[in-house]
Amino acid sequence: MKAIVYRGRGTPSWEDVPDPEINDDADAIVRVDATTICGTDLHILDGDVPSVHPGRIIGHEAVGTVEEIGSSVRTIAEGDRVLVSCISSCGMCQPCREGHFGQCRGGGGWLLGHNRDGTQAEFARIPFADTSTYQLPAAVSDEEALMLADVVPTGYEVGVLKSRVQPGEVVAVVGSGPVGLAAIMGARLFSPSHIVAIDPADRRLEAAKHFGADVTVNDAAANPLEVVRSLTDGRGADVVIEAVGRPETFEMAVRLTRPGARVANVGVHGKPAAFHLEDQWTRDLTVTTGLVDTYSTPLLLRLLAGRQIDTRKFVTHRFGLDEFPDAYDVFTRAGDSGALKVVLSR
Amino acid sequence: MKAIVYRGRGTPSWEDVPDPEINDDADAIVRVDATTICGTDLHILDGDVPSVHPGRIIGHEAVGTVEEIGSSVRTIAEGDRVLVSCISSCGMCQPCREGHFGQCRGGGGWLLGHNRDGTQAEFARIPFADTSTYQLPAAVSDEEALMLADVVPTGYEVGVLKSRVQPGEVVAVVGSGPVGLAAIMGARLFSPSHIVAIDPADRRLEAAKHFGADVTVNDAAANPLEVVRSLTDGRGADVVIEAVGRPETFEMAVRLTRPGARVANVGVHGKPAAFHLEDQWTRDLTVTTGLVDTYSTPLLLRLLAGRQIDTRKFVTHRFGLDEFPDAYDVFTRAGDSGALKVVLSR
Amino acid sequence: MKAIVYRGRGTPSWEDVPDPEINDDADAIVRVDATTICGTDLHILDGDVPSVHPGRIIGHEAVGTVEEIGSSVRTIAEGDRVLVSCISSCGMCQPCREGHFGQCRGGGGWLLGHNRDGTQAEFARIPFADTSTYQLPAAVSDEEALMLADVVPTGYEVGVLKSRVQPGEVVAVVGSGPVGLAAIMGARLFSPSHIVAIDPADRRLEAAKHFGADVTVNDAAANPLEVVRSLTDGRGADVVIEAVGRPETFEMAVRLTRPGARVANVGVHGKPAAFHLEDQWTRDLTVTTGLVDTYSTPLLLRLLAGRQIDTRKFVTHRFGLDEFPDAYDVFTRAGDSGALKVVLSR
Amino acid sequence: MKAIVYRGRGTPSWEDVPDPEINDDADAIVRVDATTICGTDLHILDGDVPSVHPGRIIGHEAVGTVEEIGSSVRTIAEGDRVLVSCISSCGMCQPCREGHFGQCRGGGGWLLGHNRDGTQAEFARIPFADTSTYQLPAAVSDEEALMLADVVPTGYEVGVLKSRVQPGEVVAVVGSGPVGLAAIMGARLFSPSHIVAIDPADRRLEAAKHFGADVTVNDAAANPLEVVRSLTDGRGADVVIEAVGRPETFEMAVRLTRPGARVANVGVHGKPAAFHLEDQWTRDLTVTTGLVDTYSTPLLLRLLAGRQIDTRKFVTHRFGLDEFPDAYDVFTRAGDSGALKVVLSR
Repeated sequence: MKAIVYRGRGTPSWEDVPDPEINDDADAIVRVDATTICGTDLHILDGDVPSVHPGRIIGHEAVGTVEEIGSSVRTIAEGDRVLVSCISSCGMCQPCREGHFGQCRGGGGWLLGHNRDGTQAEFARIPFADTSTYQLPAAVSDEEALMLADVVPTGYEVGVLKSRVQPGEVVAVVGSGPVGLAAIMGARLFSPSHIVAIDPADRRLEAAKHFGADVTVNDAAANPLEVVRSLTDGRGADVVIEAVGRPETFEMAVRLTRPGARVANVGVHGKPAAFHLEDQWTRDLTVTTGLVDTYSTPLLLRLLAGRQIDTRKFVTHRFGLDEFPDAYDVFTRAGDSGALKVVLSR
Repeated sequence: MKAIVYRGRGTPSWEDVPDPEINDDADAIVRVDATTICGTDLHILDGDVPSVHPGRIIGHEAVGTVEEIGSSVRTIAEGDRVLVSCISSCGMCQPCREGHFGQCRGGGGWLLGHNRDGTQAEFARIPFADTSTYQLPAAVSDEEALMLADVVPTGYEVGVLKSRVQPGEVVAVVGSGPVGLAAIMGARLFSPSHIVAIDPADRRLEAAKHFGADVTVNDAAANPLEVVRSLTDGRGADVVIEAVGRPETFEMAVRLTRPGARVANVGVHGKPAAFHLEDQWTRDLTVTTGLVDTYSTPLLLRLLAGRQIDTRKFVTHRFGLDEFPDAYDVFTRAGDSGALKVVLSR
Repeated sequence: MKAIVYRGRGTPSWEDVPDPEINDDADAIVRVDATTICGTDLHILDGDVPSVHPGRIIGHEAVGTVEEIGSSVRTIAEGDRVLVSCISSCGMCQPCREGHFGQCRGGGGWLLGHNRDGTQAEFARIPFADTSTYQLPAAVSDEEALMLADVVPTGYEVGVLKSRVQPGEVVAVVGSGPVGLAAIMGARLFSPSHIVAIDPADRRLEAAKHFGADVTVNDAAANPLEVVRSLTDGRGADVVIEAVGRPETFEMAVRLTRPGARVANVGVHGKPAAFHLEDQWTRDLTVTTGLVDTYSTPLLLRLLAGRQIDTRKFVTHRFGLDEFPDAYDVFTRAGDSGALKVVLSR
Repeated sequence: MKAIVYRGRGTPSWEDVPDPEINDDADAIVRVDATTICGTDLHILDGDVPSVHPGRIIGHEAVGTVEEIGSSVRTIAEGDRVLVSCISSCGMCQPCREGHFGQCRGGGGWLLGHNRDGTQAEFARIPFADTSTYQLPAAVSDEEALMLADVVPTGYEVGVLKSRVQPGEVVAVVGSGPVGLAAIMGARLFSPSHIVAIDPADRRLEAAKHFGADVTVNDAAANPLEVVRSLTDGRGADVVIEAVGRPETFEMAVRLTRPGARVANVGVHGKPAAFHLEDQWTRDLTVTTGLVDTYSTPLLLRLLAGRQIDTRKFVTHRFGLDEFPDAYDVFTRAGDSGALKVVLSR
């Protein structure tokens, strides 16, 4: 089959590789019907993720059709249409038994396109298939479901649920990339009074409005703290969701709070941030970090089937599976191309 | 009357001042029967708290007898024995209505010995007396109750309750000063498997054992991370309570965690700490800060009356009210003197 | 002044009575600009509430203008436009300090039109005025705010918040009277997948649709259990809110649940219900009861000012204050008249 | 092998049956080293559990040694010492993924000795072995661990955790049979001020004291409500745990509460109880029911290994596996024999 293979720092390689085979009785082989590219994949191609070794097929998001199952797989069968989640979970270890699938200690976690071959390929082997895939309702299209492989549950679980958004609150979301937009979409379900999107790119702020932000701030041009204070009698936001991953955006997130606020970090960070405890020690803050567990996936599928969320608006570009180089080009130039998520379909 | 007056950076001044008088119909005048010195008072005398101006009577902890009440005070009466809390709360603003008395927006908060005259005096005027004092049960001595003016609720609310200690968990407490000891005592109520006290002074670690720590680590001599890992199959603590207030102790606190842990900062910080998000962004941490609200004071009085906690062990030195200079001397030299809390009684 | 006075079982008496006066330094005198009638008032007039004695001015809901304040009142002033809440709270007792104002032990609770003269009058004396009234934002009309005196916080706190409605859940609301409608309106803020309104009156089910129910069941004609099961793969509702107050409606509420569901009773009951523990003991149910605390009033005012909720649709009939007999007539014949809430304005 | 077989209403039959065999790749065969009898087994023998058909080997609690595992079992191996839990869980369905193992929809739930052959035998086949057994630490004896098969997690999860016992609270436990005693033992971990045990048998009240009750009431002789009120300034208990399962004990449980209390039903009920909503509708009660999930089993094993709980005191009688008839006799006559739990060991 053909697959995107990491060959060291540089452009992705679209090459012929052997078809995957069942290695373990809990595996399934899935024919990839649709996949997408994550910002993390770009980090891998930049050589920034040393745990990914050359030769690895990358990609951790897919919708597909079950081709074959291992002997112990019981909840999916050949021919089933499934969502392949970015998190594989053994289902048996203590964290999995508590719903913390992202912290799996039984061999799961982020495996696909990381320390096992991934989904940017014609076929993929999915470990722990029973507890790492989700059957798709007929009412949900491949493309809609694909957004639930990573970006939507990440924004919802790590951003919205950890920060406990409540009706009438003011929520600031720092960063309007795909995960920030997912957080905005998810926060809207709890009826906050305002969702303030903050980003230096006007194009992304436009997108933020479509996802549910009612106030936008270009922080290259205006001071987000002043905007947030003007909405809150000078007090600050009830919730801030950091969806960028840089020291300065985390520090901004903390500054935007009212006493008693919750700050949920969703951004992928490469450097330490300063935590200004000299200002914050008395302010009753709660700061959270987290990796997605995907425990919310069944709920999100239900919201999708019931048209309570619309994930199609993430998809800005569509390609055939054999057009991977073009897809990577568009996604890498997101600033110019306006790409949010690109979908590659069979 | 005589009082300890801040006269600018330097030693405290024990001098004659006018008796306090009712200024507001919600005030009470309390005769101070017992008071104590807080680490914050030393910061004030060092000139580190610029919001305290020269001429201010310091002190924010007392047990006393009501001498006189303002016309609108209804829950206490002349002659009542009361605990004077470090937090004054108006009881009417939104934070007070939600139990966040420490964040009072109606004129309360930390007032005594800060922006109003305090309790290190023969008499003190207590604002918002109905919602800032607590009647003492007969079964509770002045000295026992006095520890509930600040240090015990601070350790319990900001350390133990915010970090949600559960039975069977491993709790690390960084710092074994009075607030760290209060956190240890409070954590014990939830039956953790281990409480690990960490401090560079052996004398304080000895105290930690008396307050309920079953493991102690002198971090000048041993690596707390190794000790915590040895108790937790290499994973890290479920809960870490920071009770020092320095960048390096906060950073240690974060390092000691398992994925999914809670870190409660109780320490008073003067500088930013590094938050190593590059390591922590995936680890499902919850980090909290907070000022005591004293909402737990009625519960703590009940625990005291029922002998479920013993606060007498905080008291290492006792003085008369007129021996303030000696008391300050002993407390300032806590390293040598082994002082935890010093009590000054009428 | 003129007022509605309870003179024993029978029709309400609209008569001349002395103007109220400040009795306590925490009182305020409020000129009633708008008031309304509650189902409870009808119970009083039927002689079913023996704690209400003849001679009492009834009514516990109002919007008005402050005429005079007691000497200790600090948060409202003469001329202020305020909401008078059905719950008066002392603000000082333990339940009040914990936000349980409805359980006030300091002399508050449901006082107005119960054991103190109420609001169906030209003027009313409001005890504990600082903690029992709410200043109105200019953006909120009298009529809109009036719905927040009782019915809206009751449905929201006792129905929606106690049952912890979550996005994607199926919520059944038994009874589409004013409180059931308030529960429907409040539940919608949490984005459930379905809100099923159940009532034997088609007219009320029509109203339920306007408040946010997407499924309605006339339980005189159809089996609500079948409808709920058809929406939930045969499992039952995640949340059921009982807003009637009869044994059979409570028992229906319990039957409608899935395992793990929450049942919030809001209805006012006069008789015991059967709790079928022989069926329910294994089913992980949570059943709650409660009196409104009105802790949500500031939030609800904010939602109203921000147009996130619309309370005008409760108001089906409007009268002048001097038309009380007509208003009672219309409200008593709600079945015929279609009355939800009737507003009487100065 | 020999096993206890249900042959219809009457005495248990200790007879020769075929050895169990692996039927499914997720099964394990466990040699029973110790087992015990549950009150539910007596109900089965009385013919009260129609879902148990004649021919069924009963028993749902065991500690044993793994003899053989199915091909997909990965977390236990031949020779491992394991606890066999009363709840079998598939680990894959939605309730299992959320930790609600007792509500398993994938074929699990209460299977052993119910609709599959059970543990009162020399060997037992354990379905879903990976997610239904727990490896035993060396520090824990068979007998100690055996109490964790059902009674201890039932009291802890359904009684203590659902009722959210907090330090300083007053907890009443209605019924001092094994599950009531387990609730007492578990409640003690949260440092309540008082645990009031209520039972009509003095012998059981004696046991209650050993498990942690500090107040006991023989409700055949005294009025529990008066006792509870005397401990609570007339208000009632913060938490009541019902561990009997009769209408009158449930109704007593509700009566014992203060406003705002939690009532956790653990008792197995055969008849409806009256829920006096006419008294309780305003009282902010939370009433819960539940089947054990055994999610707390790993924690309880840790508490046992750390000597934080002592389960040996449940064991009043010990027998060999071949003395089943005697064991049943003693357990059936618990009133006379004082039996709490009887252990049968190989």
